[in-house]
Amino acid sequence: MQLTQHTDYGLRLLIVLARADGGPVALTEFAAEHRLSYHHVAKVAQKLVREGFIVSHRGRSGGVSLARSADAITVGEVVRALEKGMRLADCSGCVLASNCGTSPLLARALAAFMAVLDGETLAQAAKPGLTHAPWMLAAV
Amino acid sequence: MQLTQHTDYGLRLLIVLARADGGPVALTEFAAEHRLSYHHVAKVAQKLVREGFIVSHRGRSGGVSLARSADAITVGEVVRALEKGMRLADCSGCVLASNCGTSPLLARALAAFMAVLDGETLAQAAKPGLTHAPWMLAAV
Repeated sequence: MQLTQHTDYGLRLLIVLARADGGPVALTEFAAEHRLSYHHVAKVAQKLVREGFIVSHRGRSGGVSLARSADAITVGEVVRALEKGMRLADCSGCVLASNCGTSPLLARALAAFMAVLDGETLAQAAKPGLTHAPWMLAAV
Repeated sequence: MQLTQHTDYGLRLLIVLARADGGPVALTEFAAEHRLSYHHVAKVAQKLVREGFIVSHRGRSGGVSLARSADAITVGEVVRALEKGMRLADCSGCVLASNCGTSPLLARALAAFMAVLDGETLAQAAKPGLTHAPWMLAAV
């Protein structure tokens, strides 16, 4: 179980923007500093603009900045927007299909996962973590 | 965010075995009925044997069956065993690394997700679902 690279890059960019105190950040500098593909970063940024999380500035200063306060954006809405269309699993090809208790179970587990992300703002997530928490599913 | 195909196939096999009332199921028949690659199913079954969830029977009857009661297996332990080594995201290459609140946040969200799966047995998951719940993340 893994977030898409799209979501990973999007969260990194939004956290950097949340720490930039509203100041615009150049995507070229962000991509270089984070050693990410500029092409991929630019695509994620386009998506974040379309979804209303960031605004893009033209001209010499250029760059992107948050469209609203980091206090007014939850991590949950960002993940929903960037993971849109992803499935935790795909019942459609399964002969068990709806005749299976796993589907509502996974839906409940996913709701619990999202409830935690909905409860935290980008401003909170941008704060340095106390520890580098284990992300390995096996470590949970 | 998506469970691996490995976990998907593994859960399907375990649910079929939980419904088989302890009777062995031939992997060839399971793969054919579910229109899955026998090679992939056999690999998942080997893993489930190693992890102590199923036992394999030799001879004409052959097949695999649950190693213990479906009441004594939680969906959480199955997902942990099959997703082992997967990461929700990978901080290792990120310059923010541990200096980021997203890591503990995702760990908390993942713990909430697993808590739901830990609270349900394979026997419960094997029961027909009332509805075909939305698995689209955006639908949560």
